Amino acid sequence: MILTPAIPFVSSLDEAEELIWLEALSQAMPDESILPLRKLTENERKLSEVAIVANPDPADLQTLPNLVWVHSVWAGVEKLLQQPVASHYSIVRLIDPELSRVMAEAVLAWTLFLHRDMPAYARQQTKAVWQPLPYVAASDRSVGILGLGELGRRAAQALSEQGFKVQGWSRTEKRMEQVQCLFGEEGLEQILKQSDILVCLLPLTTTTEGLLAGDNLAKIKPGAQLINFARGKIVDEDMLLYELNTGRIKHAVLDVFVYEPLPRSHPFWTHPNITVLPHISAPTTVQSASKIVAQNIRNYRHLSVLPDTVDTLLGY
Amino acid sequence: MILTPAIPFVSSLDEAEELIWLEALSQAMPDESILPLRKLTENERKLSEVAIVANPDPADLQTLPNLVWVHSVWAGVEKLLQQPVASHYSIVRLIDPELSRVMAEAVLAWTLFLHRDMPAYARQQTKAVWQPLPYVAASDRSVGILGLGELGRRAAQALSEQGFKVQGWSRTEKRMEQVQCLFGEEGLEQILKQSDILVCLLPLTTTTEGLLAGDNLAKIKPGAQLINFARGKIVDEDMLLYELNTGRIKHAVLDVFVYEPLPRSHPFWTHPNITVLPHISAPTTVQSASKIVAQNIRNYRHLSVLPDTVDTLLGY
Ligand SMILES: NC(=O)c1ccc[n+]([C@@H]2O[C@H](COP(=O)([O-])OP(=O)(O)OC[C@H]3O[C@@H](n4cnc5c(N)ncnc54)[C@H](OP(=O)(O)O)[C@@H]3O)[C@@H](O)[C@H]2O)c1
Ligand SMILES: NC(=O)c1ccc[n+]([C@@H]2O[C@H](COP(=O)([O-])OP(=O)(O)OC[C@H]3O[C@@H](n4cnc5c(N)ncnc54)[C@H](OP(=O)(O)O)[C@@H]3O)[C@@H](O)[C@H]2O)c1
Repeated sequence: MILTPAIPFVSSLDEAEELIWLEALSQAMPDESILPLRKLTENERKLSEVAIVANPDPADLQTLPNLVWVHSVWAGVEKLLQQPVASHYSIVRLIDPELSRVMAEAVLAWTLFLHRDMPAYARQQTKAVWQPLPYVAASDRSVGILGLGELGRRAAQALSEQGFKVQGWSRTEKRMEQVQCLFGEEGLEQILKQSDILVCLLPLTTTTEGLLAGDNLAKIKPGAQLINFARGKIVDEDMLLYELNTGRIKHAVLDVFVYEPLPRSHPFWTHPNITVLPHISAPTTVQSASKIVAQNIRNYRHLSVLPDTVDTLLGY
Repeated sequence: MILTPAIPFVSSLDEAEELIWLEALSQAMPDESILPLRKLTENERKLSEVAIVANPDPADLQTLPNLVWVHSVWAGVEKLLQQPVASHYSIVRLIDPELSRVMAEAVLAWTLFLHRDMPAYARQQTKAVWQPLPYVAASDRSVGILGLGELGRRAAQALSEQGFKVQGWSRTEKRMEQVQCLFGEEGLEQILKQSDILVCLLPLTTTTEGLLAGDNLAKIKPGAQLINFARGKIVDEDMLLYELNTGRIKHAVLDVFVYEPLPRSHPFWTHPNITVLPHISAPTTVQSASKIVAQNIRNYRHLSVLPDTVDTLLGY
């Protein structure tokens, strides 16, 4: 018998996707009853202290007056923070070692894609051109990671294990073996100027929005290549296009965009120096995420312990 | 003053490439005089016990009657073994940790290219299609390495460190941590049937020529993908094309071909499921190869020790 109040699942998913989540979450915590928000009675809504969310409409959350916290099944929660009124609940985002593994794998995969000149060889193939390009050793290739959080740290480590020269950049000072850790304005200037391949793994916040625009974009090392696996709005898309057209930035691998799905008429699709990916660098794994959410909710129920919550002022 | 007889450098390289090698080799062994074969006098040819070779015309080597051994600056030496008359000298091929590192990097790079569906996403991009494909975890992806020598072993290790399920196949029985080692006919059947991605790193010998043809090619797991970084003649190109056309083999990454450069009219260039590379998976690094050759020649001069030589019967 379930004694705790039902947990609302609040999402913008379609019904099929919603069902997959509800099943996996219910299986991961058989002691809890997890229901789509619309199935909760007025009274049940009043009793809800915790909700599980997947890109929810913040207005929906306002119908839960006694909410203490929400657990997002995504890692990025910038939309939850964009509410006009301050929210009355804390936000917990997904921190999943499996997600970090998949993202580190993606960073390694597309860094090697650029490092081993796959875009140039693909272009040569379309013209039946047999032309070996000079090989650059990984130890002579400087890779910069913007953001040294859950995802950035693990990606930096994977790259350094592969022999790349790795620098990382964060807001506060960090220490990592084999990775040169930079921070603040000065650190940003250095990483932009020195990286041959620049990987963005920052959260989208009021501070990082448009970070790679104007002066900063202009500081990027000539001939460098860019990978954005974080959020589209961190990069100024028009200015990036300009830098790609002048050739100062050689190639960009983009998994995230200001508007997703990327509109069919967008010039990125046909640009020879842009690789467009449909937001697949690190998909949430329903099973593994459900287990993490379940553990966090158990700790709350039994030990009254909340996981680390998002700092609403910092925005991550 | 140089007291030892001059060492002939025998190659099919053009003069510019030859010069690069001569300079690097001379720098790596300042005590030796290394000259292109054509610059050696009749008497010097008679005194030559060792030659350094880069894809030489075997007939040229017949002009060195007292040759004890040749040191190839390439890893693959099948052409040196294809002589009608048995050679009077031993063959030493390049074994260079830097070459193995670069090859393992290439195997990892193009395995990730296939693992993360880069060919499919590139095709989608040409049609402006935004469609995430199901993510398969590395631990659910079986990668088979044909050949567990200097290159295969290191590649297998790099893949297993990245979380792939790795099997390897060799002639004689092997043992490796985290890699299931198979050998012989039965082992071949298993690796062909089970691998989602199959990587060829075998030497070209009379036994491996055409190994991936007929029955063996037909045993490959439906939907599997192939990487050939060894030698073109190990794979039957026409049959591979057939398997790609039926879709039984999903994609092939080919760095080596029966005829190189791949003729402009060859159907591989335009096949949507073939990635053509111009023999660049692991280029010899002149500096690092020269150091290895120098050390081997020093050991011969001072200690009368020859490095491991190629087994002319086995052909590798
Ligand atoms: N494309 C995809 O499939 C996908 C999947 C998952 C996540 N993501 C994105 O990846 C982002 C990062 O995830 P995470 O889990 O690594 O986040 P995290 O653990 O919160 O780490 C964020 C990192 O960014 C740094 N940072 C934040 N603001 C900064 C600023 N103004 N200047 C310099 N550094 C700053 C932080 O610095 P401190 O360490 O000093 O705090 C921290 O190192 C998510 O927010 C999400 O948008 C994308
Ligand atoms: N594309 C490029 O840029 C590039 C660069 C360098 C090299 N290569 C190619 O890579 C090849 C492999 O190099 P390597 O240094 O790793 O050679 P290696 O050290 O001689 O290793 C050869 C491996 O193949 C196995 N093998 C040989 N004949 C076999 C057979 N009939 N059945 C099953 N296994 C067999 C051997 O088995 P045992 O261990 O039982 O003897 C060994 O494990 C070279 O010969 C060259 O052609 C290509």
